[in-house]
Amino acid sequence: MTHNLLKGKRGIIFGALNEDSIAWKVAVKAVEEGASITLSNTAMALRMGTLNELSEQLNAPVIAADATSVEDLEKVFAESVRLLGGKIDFVLHSIGMSPNVRKHRTYDDLDYNYLQKTLDISAISFHKMLQVAKKQDAIAEYGSVVALTYVAAQRTFFGYNDMADAKSMLESIARSFGYIYGREKNVRINCISQSPTPTTAGKGIKDMDNLMDFANKMSPLGNATADDCADYCVMMFSDFTRKVTMQTLYHDGGFSSMGMSLRAMNQYAKDLAPYEDENGKIIYG
Amino acid sequence: MTHNLLKGKRGIIFGALNEDSIAWKVAVKAVEEGASITLSNTAMALRMGTLNELSEQLNAPVIAADATSVEDLEKVFAESVRLLGGKIDFVLHSIGMSPNVRKHRTYDDLDYNYLQKTLDISAISFHKMLQVAKKQDAIAEYGSVVALTYVAAQRTFFGYNDMADAKSMLESIARSFGYIYGREKNVRINCISQSPTPTTAGKGIKDMDNLMDFANKMSPLGNATADDCADYCVMMFSDFTRKVTMQTLYHDGGFSSMGMSLRAMNQYAKDLAPYEDENGKIIYG
Amino acid sequence: MTHNLLKGKRGIIFGALNEDSIAWKVAVKAVEEGASITLSNTAMALRMGTLNELSEQLNAPVIAADATSVEDLEKVFAESVRLLGGKIDFVLHSIGMSPNVRKHRTYDDLDYNYLQKTLDISAISFHKMLQVAKKQDAIAEYGSVVALTYVAAQRTFFGYNDMADAKSMLESIARSFGYIYGREKNVRINCISQSPTPTTAGKGIKDMDNLMDFANKMSPLGNATADDCADYCVMMFSDFTRKVTMQTLYHDGGFSSMGMSLRAMNQYAKDLAPYEDENGKIIYG
Amino acid sequence: MTHNLLKGKRGIIFGALNEDSIAWKVAVKAVEEGASITLSNTAMALRMGTLNELSEQLNAPVIAADATSVEDLEKVFAESVRLLGGKIDFVLHSIGMSPNVRKHRTYDDLDYNYLQKTLDISAISFHKMLQVAKKQDAIAEYGSVVALTYVAAQRTFFGYNDMADAKSMLESIARSFGYIYGREKNVRINCISQSPTPTTAGKGIKDMDNLMDFANKMSPLGNATADDCADYCVMMFSDFTRKVTMQTLYHDGGFSSMGMSLRAMNQYAKDLAPYEDENGKIIYG
Repeated sequence: MTHNLLKGKRGIIFGALNEDSIAWKVAVKAVEEGASITLSNTAMALRMGTLNELSEQLNAPVIAADATSVEDLEKVFAESVRLLGGKIDFVLHSIGMSPNVRKHRTYDDLDYNYLQKTLDISAISFHKMLQVAKKQDAIAEYGSVVALTYVAAQRTFFGYNDMADAKSMLESIARSFGYIYGREKNVRINCISQSPTPTTAGKGIKDMDNLMDFANKMSPLGNATADDCADYCVMMFSDFTRKVTMQTLYHDGGFSSMGMSLRAMNQYAKDLAPYEDENGKIIYG
Repeated sequence: MTHNLLKGKRGIIFGALNEDSIAWKVAVKAVEEGASITLSNTAMALRMGTLNELSEQLNAPVIAADATSVEDLEKVFAESVRLLGGKIDFVLHSIGMSPNVRKHRTYDDLDYNYLQKTLDISAISFHKMLQVAKKQDAIAEYGSVVALTYVAAQRTFFGYNDMADAKSMLESIARSFGYIYGREKNVRINCISQSPTPTTAGKGIKDMDNLMDFANKMSPLGNATADDCADYCVMMFSDFTRKVTMQTLYHDGGFSSMGMSLRAMNQYAKDLAPYEDENGKIIYG
Repeated sequence: MTHNLLKGKRGIIFGALNEDSIAWKVAVKAVEEGASITLSNTAMALRMGTLNELSEQLNAPVIAADATSVEDLEKVFAESVRLLGGKIDFVLHSIGMSPNVRKHRTYDDLDYNYLQKTLDISAISFHKMLQVAKKQDAIAEYGSVVALTYVAAQRTFFGYNDMADAKSMLESIARSFGYIYGREKNVRINCISQSPTPTTAGKGIKDMDNLMDFANKMSPLGNATADDCADYCVMMFSDFTRKVTMQTLYHDGGFSSMGMSLRAMNQYAKDLAPYEDENGKIIYG
Repeated sequence: MTHNLLKGKRGIIFGALNEDSIAWKVAVKAVEEGASITLSNTAMALRMGTLNELSEQLNAPVIAADATSVEDLEKVFAESVRLLGGKIDFVLHSIGMSPNVRKHRTYDDLDYNYLQKTLDISAISFHKMLQVAKKQDAIAEYGSVVALTYVAAQRTFFGYNDMADAKSMLESIARSFGYIYGREKNVRINCISQSPTPTTAGKGIKDMDNLMDFANKMSPLGNATADDCADYCVMMFSDFTRKVTMQTLYHDGGFSSMGMSLRAMNQYAKDLAPYEDENGKIIYG
C-alpha cells in the first residue's frame, strides 16, 4: 500500500549500485510513494552494477557523475531539475569508500593520499553536493537532504579505520551546512546512522558477519535492514519531518543506546563462567 | 490531504488539555491519518480544559486517570483495548508538571515533597504506563510509544528547575524500558525533544516569550510548532519508523545542534559592539 | 610520592564502607595529598564495614548520617566545617543503592516504593547535599564536588535496572546545580563515570565478572581500578581543574568511546565463524 | 608553588607562537612542573612570533617543522627523543588554521583546495604525529597526548566555518588512534575543548569579542583562560589521569552544558520585553 508521502516531489538518489544497495531500496520506495527521481553513480559503478535495470523499472534517468567533481555535480543538479521539471525536493547521499580499507592499510599505517580520497569520496562529496545545489538554487524551499552514516562516527569499531573519521566529518558537514541552508531556504539536512547492512560495500568488510551478529544481538529490535532504512528515508523526505535538521538519527534497532544486552552477553560469556539465571529465566530486566 | 499512515491503528493520547496542547494536535492528526484513539487526562484537567469537545470531534472516548496511579493506568489500558477493539498500537505521553516551579521554589531551595511530585508526574508516570501496558500485554507487536521531552534534559536552562532532572529521568526510562519491550515485543519507545511551545503549560513559564524568541532565532528553521510536532509524532507512530528505538529525537528546527547563530548574536550584541558585516551582508557562513 | 595537590584543603568523603570502596581509596589519597577530611556513611554501613579503621589511619572524624535526611546532612556539613576549621573545599558523593536490584525485581516489574528509595538514596541525596551546603555556605569559593556515576546513565546494560534512571538523574543534578553554584560561588560540580569496579556494591551484581571481563576487553586501557579513580578524583579536587564543571567525565580506559574492539570480538566470536587474520596478525586497525 | 607533577617527564609542545598562545602557557607550566620539553612550530611562525624567547626561558630546544609533513614530524620526534634523552611522555597538538576563514570564503562558497589545507593543518597533522610517533615507538608506555579543540565540533557557530568539520575530524582521530595506541602501548589520547580564547589566532576571528562575551555570560564559571587551560593540560599529562582516553574533555566554565543562563538572557532580552524578577532577585534557579 502506498501512502503518497512523496507525491509530486522530485528527488536525486546518489549511490545505488545493485539491488542490495540501500540507495536502491530508497529509490524504489520513493517512486512508490509518488516521487519522480534521477539516479546517479560513477561510470565505474554503472558498469559494475545493475543501475540501468532500476532506471528502467522506475522510469528514472541515470546521470553518471563522480561525486568528488564539482563539475559533474553541477551537471547532475542542472540535469535533474530539467528532466524532472522543477526544483529538487529531496536528495540521498549514500556514498562512501576507503582505499585504505580496500588496500588493507591499518589505521596506524595510513597512506595519506588514500586518506585524502576517503575524505573526498565519503565526506567532502556531500559538501560539494550541497554547495552546488545552493549555488544553482536547485533545492526547493523545505527540501530535505539525507546522508547515510554509521555509529563509528561516535565510537570506535576495530577495522572501520579512516571511514570513522570521514563519517565524523560527514555529520559535521550536515550540521554546518544545515545551519546555512536552513536559515536561508528552510532546507533540512540530516544523517541517518544505519545498522551494519549486507550491501556490496558492507559485505566487503572482513568479518562483517560477526559484527552483524553482535549488532543484531545487542539491538533490542535487531538490525535495521535496507528496506527498513528506505522507509525511514522516505519519512525524512516527507512533509512530516519539516522541522528536523542538523541531526544524526540512529536507525539501528536501538544499538546506539545499548551498553550490553543479555543476548549478546550470553554469546560473549559462553566460554567464561556460564551466564544463566537460577531458574532459566531472565531475572534482571 | 491524509496519507492513511495510521489506518486501522489504535492509540492512547495522554495529556491533551485544550486546543493549544501538543497532545490535542497529535490526537487530531492521528485520527485524520486513520487511527481510532482514546484520550486521557486527570479529572482536574478535564474540568479546567476542553477535552470533551475534542472527544466529540474525534469520536474518541475520554478516560479520566491520574497517571501517577497504577490502578488508574490499568483502567486506561484495559478500557482502551476494550473500546477500540484490540491491542494498542501507539501511546503518547505528554505529561509534566513541577510544583516547585509553580510555587516559585528555586532550584537551590527545592521542597523535596514537591520534587517527589515532579518526578512522579513527569517521569515515573511513564514507567508506570509501560509496566502496566506490558503486564496486560496491551500494546501490539511493533507498537510505538512516544514521550515529549525538552533539551533541558541535556543542557541547563535557568528557570527550568527540577523539570530538567525529571526529563533526564524520563529519557532514561525510554531507554531502559525500550530495551526490554523491544527485545520481547518489538515495541519501540522514543522521546521527542520539542522546541519551546506556547501551550498552557509553556505559557505559564516566566519570560517564556524571551526564551522562545531566543530559541527561534537560534534555530535555522525556527521553532517547531505544536502542529509540526503532531506530524512528527504521527511519523513515529507509523510503520515507517519501525527500527527506531531508545532515542531522544530533537524536533526543534535545529536548536540542539546550534552553538550560536548570526540572528541570535545580532540581537544579543545590540548593546555591545555593534555586530555587522563590513558591507551589510553575511560574510561568515 | 605526594604532590601536595590538596595541601590545606578540607573535604568530606561520603560512602566509604571498606578498603574495596572507591571512596576509601579517595580518602586515603586525599589525605596523602595534604587534605584534612571527614568521613560519612550510614549507621548501618558503619556497623557492616570497617570505616573506623580508616578514620584512625587518616585521623579523619566519622560523622554518621543518612544521606537522604536533610537534617543529618546539615549536621555533616556543620560538623565538618567546625572539625576541619573552615569551609569545605571538596566533597565526594559515592552513594548508590537499589532495593529493586537487591530484591531481584526486574525493570518491568518495579516496586514503586523501592524506586522511590533508589532515587532518594542514589540521586536526590546529591541534591540535598548541595542544597544544604549552599544554604550553610559551607563550601569555599572554587570548591569542587564530585559524584560517581556509570555509563548506564547513557546506555542500557541489562540488569542495571532502575539504577540507570537514578544515575541519569544524578548527572542532571550535577548540571542543574552546577549552574547555580558555579555562577554564585565558583563551585564546580562534576560526575566521574567509572569502569565497573569490584567494590562490595559492585560484587553484589549478578554476573559482574562477565560484565567486567567484557568492559576490560573493550577498553583499550583496560578497566580503571578504584586506585586509578582515586587519582582522578584528587585531580578534580585540585586547583588544576578549576574551570571544569557540569560534566560527566568518563574514567573507564576508553570504554565509553568504543563500539567494538578486536579483543572483545575475539571472545565474542569464538563460537561463531572464527575471528582471525589471515596471517595471525591484526590487519584492520 | 610547583607540585612536581611532570617531574622527569619529556614532552613536545606543538603550536606555541607568542605569549598569548595556549601552547606557550602549557610549555611554561609543564617546565615548572618538572618536565623537559621541545617546542615545534613552522618556520613562518618562528619568524612571526617570539618562540625563541620561550626557548631560552625554558631551556627548551626549538625544532622547526611543518606539521603536515611526515618527514618533518619524523625529525621532530627523533630529535626530541635524542635531545631529551628518552622516549616522550606527553605531546600537545595546538594547531589549527583555515584558509577559507582567512580569505573570507563563506561555508557555502568554500574553496576546496583551501578546505584540503584546513584539514591537513588542523586535523590530519594530528594523525601524522601519532602515526610517526608510533612507528618510531617514540612515546613511552602510559604517555599522554592532548589536542586542543572547540565545541563547534558538536554545535554550529556562525563564522567558524570549515574549522568545525576539521575539529570533528580531529576528535574522531583522537578516538580512532586512541583505541590502537591504548591497547598496544597504554598511550592515552584526548581532546580538550577549550573556551574561546584571545590568542593571536582567536583574535583574528571577526567579532570574537561578542562571541567571547556571550560564552562568558553563558558559562557559570566564566570562560576558561589560557592559563587555566595550561593547568588542565598538565593534569592530563600527569599520572593522575592514566585511565582517561578517547575523550573530548570540556574545559569551558560549563558552557557546553548550558542551554541558556540568566546573565546571557538579561543581555539578550534587553531590547525585548525586559527580563527581570518581580522583586529584583533571581527567583528561578
